[in-house]
Amino acid sequence: MTQDPTKYKESECDVLIVGAGPAGMMAARVLANYQRQQPDLKIRIIDKRSTKIFTGQADGLQSRTLECMQNLGIAQKILAESNELYTIALYNPDENGIIRRTDRIPDTMPGISRFHQCVLHQGRIERHLIDSTLETSNGRIKIERPIITEDMEIDESAVEDPDAYPITVTLRYLGEEESTPLQFGHKVENGLYRSVSMMDAEDEDAQYKLPEGAEPGMIEKVKCKYVIGCDGGHSWVRRKLGIEMVGEQTDYIWGVLDAIPHTNFPDIRSRCAIHSAESGSVMIIPREKDLVRFYVQLQERAIPGQRVDRSKYTPDVVLEAARKIMAPYTLDITNLEWFTAYHIGQRVAHIFGKDDRVFIAGDACHTHSPKAGQGMNASMMDTWNLCWKLGMVLTGRANRNLLSTYQTERQPFAQALIDFDHKFSRLFSGRPAKDVADEMGVNMEEFKSAFIKSGKFASGTAIDYNESVAVAKTGDPKLNKVKSKPELAKNIGVGTRLQSERVIRHAEGLVTEVQDLLVSNGAFRIFVFAGKANQPEQMARLNKFAEYLDSADSVVSRYTPAGRKRDFIFDVITIHSNSREEIEMQDFPAPALYPKWDYKKIYADCEDWHIGHPRAYEKYGIDPVKGCVVVVRPDGYVALVTDLESTKDLDAYFDGFMQAPKKAVGAQTEPDWTAKGLYKKTTEAAKADRASATAA
Amino acid sequence: MTQDPTKYKESECDVLIVGAGPAGMMAARVLANYQRQQPDLKIRIIDKRSTKIFTGQADGLQSRTLECMQNLGIAQKILAESNELYTIALYNPDENGIIRRTDRIPDTMPGISRFHQCVLHQGRIERHLIDSTLETSNGRIKIERPIITEDMEIDESAVEDPDAYPITVTLRYLGEEESTPLQFGHKVENGLYRSVSMMDAEDEDAQYKLPEGAEPGMIEKVKCKYVIGCDGGHSWVRRKLGIEMVGEQTDYIWGVLDAIPHTNFPDIRSRCAIHSAESGSVMIIPREKDLVRFYVQLQERAIPGQRVDRSKYTPDVVLEAARKIMAPYTLDITNLEWFTAYHIGQRVAHIFGKDDRVFIAGDACHTHSPKAGQGMNASMMDTWNLCWKLGMVLTGRANRNLLSTYQTERQPFAQALIDFDHKFSRLFSGRPAKDVADEMGVNMEEFKSAFIKSGKFASGTAIDYNESVAVAKTGDPKLNKVKSKPELAKNIGVGTRLQSERVIRHAEGLVTEVQDLLVSNGAFRIFVFAGKANQPEQMARLNKFAEYLDSADSVVSRYTPAGRKRDFIFDVITIHSNSREEIEMQDFPAPALYPKWDYKKIYADCEDWHIGHPRAYEKYGIDPVKGCVVVVRPDGYVALVTDLESTKDLDAYFDGFMQAPKKAVGAQTEPDWTAKGLYKKTTEAAKADRASATAA
Repeated sequence: MTQDPTKYKESECDVLIVGAGPAGMMAARVLANYQRQQPDLKIRIIDKRSTKIFTGQADGLQSRTLECMQNLGIAQKILAESNELYTIALYNPDENGIIRRTDRIPDTMPGISRFHQCVLHQGRIERHLIDSTLETSNGRIKIERPIITEDMEIDESAVEDPDAYPITVTLRYLGEEESTPLQFGHKVENGLYRSVSMMDAEDEDAQYKLPEGAEPGMIEKVKCKYVIGCDGGHSWVRRKLGIEMVGEQTDYIWGVLDAIPHTNFPDIRSRCAIHSAESGSVMIIPREKDLVRFYVQLQERAIPGQRVDRSKYTPDVVLEAARKIMAPYTLDITNLEWFTAYHIGQRVAHIFGKDDRVFIAGDACHTHSPKAGQGMNASMMDTWNLCWKLGMVLTGRANRNLLSTYQTERQPFAQALIDFDHKFSRLFSGRPAKDVADEMGVNMEEFKSAFIKSGKFASGTAIDYNESVAVAKTGDPKLNKVKSKPELAKNIGVGTRLQSERVIRHAEGLVTEVQDLLVSNGAFRIFVFAGKANQPEQMARLNKFAEYLDSADSVVSRYTPAGRKRDFIFDVITIHSNSREEIEMQDFPAPALYPKWDYKKIYADCEDWHIGHPRAYEKYGIDPVKGCVVVVRPDGYVALVTDLESTKDLDAYFDGFMQAPKKAVGAQTEPDWTAKGLYKKTTEAAKADRASATAA
Repeated sequence: MTQDPTKYKESECDVLIVGAGPAGMMAARVLANYQRQQPDLKIRIIDKRSTKIFTGQADGLQSRTLECMQNLGIAQKILAESNELYTIALYNPDENGIIRRTDRIPDTMPGISRFHQCVLHQGRIERHLIDSTLETSNGRIKIERPIITEDMEIDESAVEDPDAYPITVTLRYLGEEESTPLQFGHKVENGLYRSVSMMDAEDEDAQYKLPEGAEPGMIEKVKCKYVIGCDGGHSWVRRKLGIEMVGEQTDYIWGVLDAIPHTNFPDIRSRCAIHSAESGSVMIIPREKDLVRFYVQLQERAIPGQRVDRSKYTPDVVLEAARKIMAPYTLDITNLEWFTAYHIGQRVAHIFGKDDRVFIAGDACHTHSPKAGQGMNASMMDTWNLCWKLGMVLTGRANRNLLSTYQTERQPFAQALIDFDHKFSRLFSGRPAKDVADEMGVNMEEFKSAFIKSGKFASGTAIDYNESVAVAKTGDPKLNKVKSKPELAKNIGVGTRLQSERVIRHAEGLVTEVQDLLVSNGAFRIFVFAGKANQPEQMARLNKFAEYLDSADSVVSRYTPAGRKRDFIFDVITIHSNSREEIEMQDFPAPALYPKWDYKKIYADCEDWHIGHPRAYEKYGIDPVKGCVVVVRPDGYVALVTDLESTKDLDAYFDGFMQAPKKAVGAQTEPDWTAKGLYKKTTEAAKADRASATAA
């Protein structure tokens, strides 16, 4: 039976991503790394909206998210457009009930990250992810819209077969009317309003346009290996899996305005938490382009179990409430960009998918109040976590057992986030205590203390993933066969993201952030902290370690596919603690640690003319003589810390989830092409050099 | 008489720029600032080549040039593509005649600038200037090519009439054959070779394309107010003016190769100066995309007065010479991108134009050896200097007397550059002395010392312009009627570029580089170093100064055209030395120092949570209590230092060259819209706040 191909078709794909918001786009971007390496991978991303979002919605980017964006190569573009947040100002009523600034605290706690929290509207963040995905995938991964999911069936008998396509998803292509979000200058009944001023007229996603060959109403049945539901708080995928959201709602109602304020309030360009005596609270978030976001607590309360009628909360209602809270300061606005009203609730799913075949991510599995700026970040970090694992499995590099760590790593974090938000939003919405005896009020010292303590959590840098096949902490026979030696790197938390310190590139002295070496390309990093490599006994240890790497038995030789460079999956990076005069790049064992014509693999923790001594060993808590080995996952999280002798730990860690290619690259032998000895200087002469250069 | 419009036309323009290399493009970019403000200005830039250059040629960008690029908004784009240089390694023969590394010194001396010297091929630098010019001028300033100049006449009787078009230039539009540079994969007789690999295929300037309506052979007579000759070492404009280049040539011949090296030479990614015992010298410049540039001294000598036959110097000849010098290290190359040979000479013009109507800039007035990486920088800085002055005159803001400072500022610099290069290139080409008695050889200690001393000069940051109508130093009745009070800012050199220090933006605590406030938009900056503004007597001084600014008699009120914002020509920026707790933004006199709804005019030199105390007052040598006033020109050079009382110095400085508009903006009066007092805290309470925040 032939059918009209504009009405019905069937297809196969490796991954179907449902929803092209931040979680979905991050999934597409990370999977693009693998699609670039293996162009026959078929990754699709669909969205039910006919155009992307141009204003409003989630906007805060936390430090950790920016670190990841940096590894994706787009942090600088985002920072150039965003507004970085520096100060939090706290305002509370004084003895006469007039609000006063009582404190200023840093918005990003010093020392947490080199990136400060910033704000940029969601449409621009999506735009950078879309562009980067297109570029990385050579144009192959492109959002298809407007398309909705109508059915999904899982063939349970095939879920453990890595070559099977056990999920069948039915898609329907939408017409223009049923899909266009009301966002351009419309004033709609539920209080949602969006202006055109922030719309990028050049944006190719600004117009309704079905994929080529499709017509409105067309049905497509897609057989998928994997499905990721990034389809928001009302997730169709989640509901189809029968997964429930657990949690509760408060009765607090908040309004939100994005506008340019005219005010004599002195901290209008700081993030502010303003508690008035009787009129509720305001949070101020200064944004890009002179905009400011106001979160305004409204005096009405929601009725439990009932949806809030947002049509009542016009911009005038919200502005008037803000004026009362911020009095005696004056407040007017121009350039209203967006407004909405919402009802605080915290809900989380206990299960993040099914059969390690269908996953849910982002708002589909956790929703909470927007004021702490967590939602979009947690959403993107969900798929940042999931998709390197999925990429490894899809390319045959890892077994499916790696996938279960998505649930064990992200669900506990989501729960912690919900608990954090539950506490934080209640402190925020509460009336300030009048005095010590006022037990119904919120103690403002407690509020401040919570704010400060929340800094690290809110930055996203505190995440510490549990023991698993992907994280070797104390060892657990059920999960893995290896344990870390954390005493070798006292300040590197196994399970946490590798914090950035600065080191000096040996070849030319470039000051380099260690995190900048964690380019998101699907590779693990094996950091060889080589210690004092100019000491013969330490060099002997390094030679032994290098012999392992070059041997046929090493993880590099066994798991790297034939025909690929040896740094394709395992990027070995050496950081020594000598000066650049005490040792030469060519002294390091070649080719294992110093591959031919590659000047970007060896770094020194040594004095620099411009920044002084970066003291990376000290900051990481690593012995400067003996060093250690640190394995970092493709997502930047520390998997294993061990010593140079324990190459069996490397074997055990990677053997726990990796899969050998049909033909591996094998042992590496290469004649000595370096020029050892030619450039040797005495240590005394080297010292004199440095002294004379520094004196100059 | 009507003529065929495709054969002949006549036109008028304000500025005709001849030559679209770095000097010409910088001229276009700076003039675009004024064209944006006054769209009827007609700025044209022509070039005789049919396409732009894609490989080779000048490449080094010095610190000062990058500072200017930052003010143009394109430094980050350039840095993202470039290779930054960190280390200079010096290699000299040891007692056995084998080259050894004898020293490493920093390529950019610490403390000179936040920007390090970097390397990027000229085609990309031009591309960023072209894009930025198009954007700034809303597409109006676009290179017209291929066009040559055939005649130029100056009507001497009209040169002092600001409304006249005294120069008539005859242009001829070229056909494809007579204009295409041989650059794409051709191997041509004179040894010039360029590969296609670095060509940007998307580049719209890669194809021969005459401007619309033109045909090959068309003649155009253009009546111009001003002409800038940026037409290179063989400048037609210079020859037409009868200006001679003065200088000499050495007999040293050097070859240049851009390629990816395969070598065991350990410093291949550092800038290197290698002096062999008997075989000559090599300079290594590591570049972007793993390329390295080799400057190789050839053993043949040129015959005085004769042009060097470059066809003899093939890549093999140059490579073989490099191998001899770099032995015993091995050297092979792949990806040869470009090569050439040249003959060192230093020549400079004594006069940089005629009648302050026709100017010459860049290679048209100074040529020298390329190894110090000065040429392109000096060329761009010529028109960076000239064009803000020209822009001021063209828009009627300044009198023509400002233009004479182009000659008095840039010609002495060019002379100093020639002298520097003369000395430096001889030290570089000389044979190393065998011992103290070897008087014909170059003493390697002297070479190193010269290299270190040259660092600041070569960075471009040492320029100190002479007293003139545009720079008020000690005062000179012939030049100006005002002198600076340099003791008020001991480390700010009047006549030098304002060095960058960090300050904290009062409104939200943003750490800000002072140089980033010097956005290139045609405005002067009046920095009000407000000192301890929380002291009543100091605030009284500030109020007085603000009264002046707001009064009808101030330079702001007299010289800003009606209808423009008050920061259009005079951007008043306040930097105080209080903490953000000791004083509020709203305490500063509004609107003079704190304009309505503008949170970007007031900065503090105070403790920051992340960087500590920037100590900008101390670094600038300014009294932290009493402050001072510093006037900075649109090109970032310090024009005047005075005190808050000496508003007559501001009048005298600007009256020296500025011209009042037909209707000025006049005095400023505004009701008090700030909220003084509302947010007042005691100093004790402020201290406690900071202590508690820091403790947290």
